[in-house]
Amino acid sequence: MNKSSNLHMTTEEFRKQGHAVVDWIADYYDKIETYPVLSQVQPGDIRSKLPKSAPQKGRPYEEILNDMNQLMPGITHWQSPNFHAYFPCATSGPAILGDLISTGLGIQGMIWATSPTCTEVETHVLDWLVDMMDLSQKFKSTSTGGGVLQDTASSSSLVALIAAREKASNGRINKNGHTGRLTVYTSSQAHSSIEKAVKITGMGKNSLRLIDVDERFAMRSDLLHRQIEQDIADGFTPAFVCATAGTTSSTAFDPIAEIGKICAEFGIWLHVDAAMAGPAALCPEYRFIHEGIEFADSYTFNPHKWMLTNFDCSVFYVADRKILIDSLSILPEYLKNKATESGAVFDYRDWGIPLGRRFRAMKLWHVINYYGVEGLQQYIRENISHTQELKEWIETDDRFEIVAPVPLNLICFRHKSGDDFNERLLNELNASGNIYLTHTKLNGQYVIRFSIGQANTTLEHIKKSWTLIQDTVVKLEQE
Amino acid sequence: MNKSSNLHMTTEEFRKQGHAVVDWIADYYDKIETYPVLSQVQPGDIRSKLPKSAPQKGRPYEEILNDMNQLMPGITHWQSPNFHAYFPCATSGPAILGDLISTGLGIQGMIWATSPTCTEVETHVLDWLVDMMDLSQKFKSTSTGGGVLQDTASSSSLVALIAAREKASNGRINKNGHTGRLTVYTSSQAHSSIEKAVKITGMGKNSLRLIDVDERFAMRSDLLHRQIEQDIADGFTPAFVCATAGTTSSTAFDPIAEIGKICAEFGIWLHVDAAMAGPAALCPEYRFIHEGIEFADSYTFNPHKWMLTNFDCSVFYVADRKILIDSLSILPEYLKNKATESGAVFDYRDWGIPLGRRFRAMKLWHVINYYGVEGLQQYIRENISHTQELKEWIETDDRFEIVAPVPLNLICFRHKSGDDFNERLLNELNASGNIYLTHTKLNGQYVIRFSIGQANTTLEHIKKSWTLIQDTVVKLEQE
Repeated sequence: MNKSSNLHMTTEEFRKQGHAVVDWIADYYDKIETYPVLSQVQPGDIRSKLPKSAPQKGRPYEEILNDMNQLMPGITHWQSPNFHAYFPCATSGPAILGDLISTGLGIQGMIWATSPTCTEVETHVLDWLVDMMDLSQKFKSTSTGGGVLQDTASSSSLVALIAAREKASNGRINKNGHTGRLTVYTSSQAHSSIEKAVKITGMGKNSLRLIDVDERFAMRSDLLHRQIEQDIADGFTPAFVCATAGTTSSTAFDPIAEIGKICAEFGIWLHVDAAMAGPAALCPEYRFIHEGIEFADSYTFNPHKWMLTNFDCSVFYVADRKILIDSLSILPEYLKNKATESGAVFDYRDWGIPLGRRFRAMKLWHVINYYGVEGLQQYIRENISHTQELKEWIETDDRFEIVAPVPLNLICFRHKSGDDFNERLLNELNASGNIYLTHTKLNGQYVIRFSIGQANTTLEHIKKSWTLIQDTVVKLEQE
Repeated sequence: MNKSSNLHMTTEEFRKQGHAVVDWIADYYDKIETYPVLSQVQPGDIRSKLPKSAPQKGRPYEEILNDMNQLMPGITHWQSPNFHAYFPCATSGPAILGDLISTGLGIQGMIWATSPTCTEVETHVLDWLVDMMDLSQKFKSTSTGGGVLQDTASSSSLVALIAAREKASNGRINKNGHTGRLTVYTSSQAHSSIEKAVKITGMGKNSLRLIDVDERFAMRSDLLHRQIEQDIADGFTPAFVCATAGTTSSTAFDPIAEIGKICAEFGIWLHVDAAMAGPAALCPEYRFIHEGIEFADSYTFNPHKWMLTNFDCSVFYVADRKILIDSLSILPEYLKNKATESGAVFDYRDWGIPLGRRFRAMKLWHVINYYGVEGLQQYIRENISHTQELKEWIETDDRFEIVAPVPLNLICFRHKSGDDFNERLLNELNASGNIYLTHTKLNGQYVIRFSIGQANTTLEHIKKSWTLIQDTVVKLEQE
């Protein structure tokens, strides 16, 4: 992009079209409630409207922006105040602008030298977050550890497992390959990414032990202890435990301190996955979710879920960065440089899967500076308070039951008329376009999840949604 | 974001600040040549200017945008017309705007249902690209294969290796773990990400065979054949060959057709890594780089390198999508939905490592529509023609030698005065701030790489750079 070109967009045109796109986004948020929350198109509907082949000649930008009209029916509106599916994936104005600056600069942070600011701002804001959330000081870059941004918690957990695998095998697997004697532990309620990581690393699903949970859906540490002893007796080497701080299904909290003591006893890597729930610890009153975090060798949470930072942005901390780097580092000639050789810098390519890296920390810099610690606390507290209000409304309607504890911002509930009725209820609600909810199964029962965390959701929205749910029940009962 | 809030940025403020950020980016490109291309800061310089802890209260957005003044000295300017290091990482106006729309929508494409447009546009443009580059039709979604966007070629190659590993073990490794009898082949000039993938997948570095190259730095297929036969005789199961179409060091092209025949003979997965060079095939006259591509089981190239699409955007094609999906799919209850169960849709979470996925295809939609096939061809042709001009200038200066073939947009050259002199020359050039070049080693010799591909680079820029190189030689000789 520059002032004149017969091929590229000029900076003058970029100003004009850039303003138009910014306005388009603002307009989108102004009218976001007029769209059905869950896209109502059928498979193939969107593709059928698109040209069969790429245009031979370039098209004016106005036309391309106009293409959005054709594409919008296939969008599910994650930023709608009535989006309560899965988990929050809340973005915000400052996050969007921070990411725009990163995109505009078009730099690469694969090593320190390729843009020192990219690396140093990343290290810096992740050190900030350790204090903001009162995590363990060993996760700071000024200690033996440090933080790094990954795309998703799937990648964070994978990277943790790779480091743990190498530690347990004393670097042998990197050389000779996995030999099938390492074992991995997590609860039966843990995220599917742990099983995926076990497969990717070549450890095999059979090395994964899913530990049963208690009545609150939290890992039973007594069963963990027993399983580890059994495995050692059987000749296995326990290598990795993943404790979940806020499970995907129901926000259950594994007892990190109890699990941590077991890991310390047997010398096992403890990874804590707080992908969604982590930011609750911005508020002192919710720091119980991380009790025992000082035992953790690694920890992950996603600002792109519940901290107003657009996807993708997953924070990953490690207590001993040397193990992590040793397990992932390769230094080809074309990447050698003085700063790397000096040892005075972090080269983040050695902290994750991809070599190339975007300037992801820019959006985090924007979010933390725009809201400040107090603004982020206010957001978390409002979400939780709204959730607790809804919980009370559900509790006073005896057609419904709440089937799991509600510690933060997710309610798992069901109508008492059984699985089929709840499935019909969910489908009817989603088909209305007025709300998007998803389900899970707890104790074998079909359960509706109501997750709260989008930036625009007010108590009024939630009240309306609850009325919609009640009205839909009446309608279904009359059918 | 909405019309009023005591906490969040309102849409009105977003319009105002968004316009300011767009203008900031346009201004940046207007004055990009006034910055030193390679950042001249020392380790820690940037961090030392940042506040020790996060702000308690939020800050006005104007201040945050103003922070960029402090951060710019630590930026290395990848989009500068005088950036000739590593590889091109060219962005463009339409790419930035496409990504901005994606960021603004804030949607998730982990499965089809979470935004059908995200999945369908991705599938659609990747089908377009098969025709635009005349790749094998089996890579199309309408055949047995399909395309998907990954973050980087590192991830694309990792995913290819995972699929190949599972195919070779008939799904056994996913269950029982790797057992150390599979082998992997690539050339000694291949990208470091192949070795990294071999480690990540638990196959171990010892399972990797680096095949020697010929005088053009291309893999010797006779040696590959011999090594495979030897390994089979030794009881190994050859599982994966990665051929490179355009190596990182010198743009060497492995003989895909010859390698493909060997893979077909032994039933080995052939992956082709064309990360940088791939887009040359947009022009019919450069399609020789993919000769034999019909033998490939998977293929990757990065529009974020040499196709004007901002990072990250790596295209990955697979010929048999069923094998890929089988090797990566896990379906927890909370992701079950009608569309997935119908089998009529792609759920891209099963095509890569992360579960969550951004709407990356939006920027590709923008780039292809804005430039059209002819615009992209013009860009590639101009880059190559500029490179060939520079090659002629270097050839006429007998203090220099060109040490590798120059098929496309990269020149590997050196001054005849030896390694130390070349290293001093490179450091002096980079310290000037007027150019950024990087090095490699070929045949054990220190070599300077001159890579051409940034959108703003004109022949005038290259002429000036060549004069700078010549003048710096004179200066160093006088020291």
